[in-house]
Amino acid sequence: MSSQSRGAPAARPIDAASDELKRMLGPRANDSAAVRDHHSRGESYHTPAAPDIVCFPHATEEVIAILKISAAYRVPVVPFGAGTSLEGHVNAIHGGITIDLREMNKVLRVSAEDLDATVEAGVTRLQLNKALRNTGLAFPVDPGADCTIGGMAATRASGTTAVRYGTMRENVLGLTVVLAGGEIIRTGTRARKSSAGYDLTRLFVGSEGTLGVITEVTLRLYPVPEAVSAAICAFDTMEGAVETVIATIQLGVPVARIELLDETQIDAVNRYSKTAYTVAPTLLFEFHGDSDRHVSDQAEAVQAAALERGGRGFEWATRLEDRERLWQARHDALYAAVALRPGSRPWTTDVCVPISRLAECILETKKDNVAATFPIALVGHAGDGNFHLVYVLDPESPAELDQARRLNERMVMRALAMGGTCTGEHGVGSGKMKYLEAEHGPALAVMRTIKRALDPDNLMNPGKMVQP
Amino acid sequence: MSSQSRGAPAARPIDAASDELKRMLGPRANDSAAVRDHHSRGESYHTPAAPDIVCFPHATEEVIAILKISAAYRVPVVPFGAGTSLEGHVNAIHGGITIDLREMNKVLRVSAEDLDATVEAGVTRLQLNKALRNTGLAFPVDPGADCTIGGMAATRASGTTAVRYGTMRENVLGLTVVLAGGEIIRTGTRARKSSAGYDLTRLFVGSEGTLGVITEVTLRLYPVPEAVSAAICAFDTMEGAVETVIATIQLGVPVARIELLDETQIDAVNRYSKTAYTVAPTLLFEFHGDSDRHVSDQAEAVQAAALERGGRGFEWATRLEDRERLWQARHDALYAAVALRPGSRPWTTDVCVPISRLAECILETKKDNVAATFPIALVGHAGDGNFHLVYVLDPESPAELDQARRLNERMVMRALAMGGTCTGEHGVGSGKMKYLEAEHGPALAVMRTIKRALDPDNLMNPGKMVQP
Repeated sequence: MSSQSRGAPAARPIDAASDELKRMLGPRANDSAAVRDHHSRGESYHTPAAPDIVCFPHATEEVIAILKISAAYRVPVVPFGAGTSLEGHVNAIHGGITIDLREMNKVLRVSAEDLDATVEAGVTRLQLNKALRNTGLAFPVDPGADCTIGGMAATRASGTTAVRYGTMRENVLGLTVVLAGGEIIRTGTRARKSSAGYDLTRLFVGSEGTLGVITEVTLRLYPVPEAVSAAICAFDTMEGAVETVIATIQLGVPVARIELLDETQIDAVNRYSKTAYTVAPTLLFEFHGDSDRHVSDQAEAVQAAALERGGRGFEWATRLEDRERLWQARHDALYAAVALRPGSRPWTTDVCVPISRLAECILETKKDNVAATFPIALVGHAGDGNFHLVYVLDPESPAELDQARRLNERMVMRALAMGGTCTGEHGVGSGKMKYLEAEHGPALAVMRTIKRALDPDNLMNPGKMVQP
Repeated sequence: MSSQSRGAPAARPIDAASDELKRMLGPRANDSAAVRDHHSRGESYHTPAAPDIVCFPHATEEVIAILKISAAYRVPVVPFGAGTSLEGHVNAIHGGITIDLREMNKVLRVSAEDLDATVEAGVTRLQLNKALRNTGLAFPVDPGADCTIGGMAATRASGTTAVRYGTMRENVLGLTVVLAGGEIIRTGTRARKSSAGYDLTRLFVGSEGTLGVITEVTLRLYPVPEAVSAAICAFDTMEGAVETVIATIQLGVPVARIELLDETQIDAVNRYSKTAYTVAPTLLFEFHGDSDRHVSDQAEAVQAAALERGGRGFEWATRLEDRERLWQARHDALYAAVALRPGSRPWTTDVCVPISRLAECILETKKDNVAATFPIALVGHAGDGNFHLVYVLDPESPAELDQARRLNERMVMRALAMGGTCTGEHGVGSGKMKYLEAEHGPALAVMRTIKRALDPDNLMNPGKMVQP
């Protein structure tokens, strides 16, 4: 303002930063409207917000240089991966620099003996698994979308296989992180375990770019199972389905996936995938084992548990194409839900509760949802107590958005009251920030203290997760 | 000093703090020489250092009050559990208040449906497993000693079963922690997974009392396996033993324990436990499964892998007493090593490396150890790449202590050069602080930043893990 009053146009810090970025990166620092717009949002309902410029670094050293420029001009930085985030994590709500890491997409190292790999942050999980094809190993964490590994680490992603293989929390061995100001650190080692100091790896996993930019990730890998089978089972009641999940876990059956779909979601799947599954609460299973016998032992144990709890028509699928058909239907669940209502957009949300409260939480939520004027489909990673709703909305209707907001809030508060969390795997972004106080109480102040200590100028993905 | 010059005796802050603690806790604030001495050390070689006073709180509220007094008088606080620490964690090297948590020993809640439990920090792992006896569940993390759960969380303990069940990192769902100054926080929820904010649970797990005092722990439990068997196999070479471990894991055999003992340790076991095992590098296995068939499938797969790699005399033990005899020998390994030399004391140390480097690291270390003037026994959690040495020392010999110090340092630097860590499970305490710079580089500064932010007066177990 004062410089304007002296007649000279204000040189905004971001403009000076952009000039430097363009000098350094050439066309890989891009402020065209199309590129900025493309980086203004993830896959969620949150209001898009474009960055001022998007950088496409090819190496950690370039990320260091970008963060030094960010610090020098005090302009915010937002890391961006595959753009599949669901809670507004990547929306550049304070403008600044978005760092798109997808061109850092090299698998740097695979060790078959150690069952680990190091990848650049922009490698996607399907790309990694393709690169592993001849090793007998796989990276099993599967959130559905073909996310980047860096994005999965940053949001502590999980998905359908977490009940067996854990989430990114359990499967990241170490990280390369560039901190605010451009300092580079490496967390963790290649040792499987360590008691040597604070667990910085776990601090950065799930920090959503608010403490630094992850540029490399070292991951655990797993042997591809010798034998796999799948099964589907419809239930008389939601309680019966959830009790079957509880029994399965109590029996110690090492089930690899155990997914719950409600009747709305099954109906949507039938319409979309031309299937004819019974329209009822349904469990989908996948079993991994070291022999066909071990897998069939697992399936038989679960079948018996299901039949005692109102399961009907437990169908096994051991052939690859039958399994793929079954799981394709699950993978397409979101598209199927959206197709229930042409022209709609999905608002997806998730919570996670102790599994003993899962049936109650789902039933109360569904009762609450009955009055909604739009379809609501439910899918859940039932073995973890984690479920998702898809509100199938008219994106032009403020009334529907408002309804969704209230239903979501009531579900979150219900989950918290049951000892659960406001998000099992989608993350906080900007969408769930308002619930962290209720979930964490005074521990939120500790998070703020850490944020202030590591990012004193609040330049790292500001306005997300915690307000410093 | 200045008050002395005015003729009045100096009232040390610790004396005033002790007076307050005694008023509050009565005989549960104890500054007798015997109690102070008992709290001056763990089970390690580090120079004992007694606190000025020891408090025995019965509730988190009392820990809060103690930490408020610590802050008011700026006197240090050292948390103390079963006293089994190995790197000087509990030695009160700056005096002050030791908080002995063993009288906070209630199992607060067990949920068979959720496979979790909440315990006070002073509950020991054997006590917990006894309390679980009729539930069909167990807490499997087993570092050997009957540690308190609080101490295990604070040091990120693991042990023989980590290869199957993970360490405390994977098995703590949430904590109650009293921070410097007396603020209480609860980290985590009872949900199995969460993406809601920074992972404070993992930050406090392994923080060794330097960021706060853990007073309650929520843990994952596991179904007691339906079937268990054990096996022992001697090998022609150390390489053959380690390659068998690698093959076992690559095959995806879900082995529950896979322990390595070198020939010195086997010899010590034979003498101590009156056994007659072949004096050679040896693997001990335990298999857990959902049926006898599943367990024997595992054992057969491992046996085949062992025979191809120079294993001889693979002996199974399915009967409980045979299994117990085998594992008792393993549990007594430390006593057996010490018994090699009457009047000796053990110095135990551990490192952890990527498993592909384990044989090399062990062989180089053993070559280095040949010149030692005292016995050195090796046991390892081979499935994790983690091994321990016991230096069986004359405690009166500075020359031997000095030799041990140099051998230890060389082993640590070797492990770091191989991509490993200076401690897989014993922790840092005061003993391994000097290696953190070499292991973490600039990440150590991040740890210091966090320490300063959460404990600005450096009152929480000062002089351990990181210098602020």
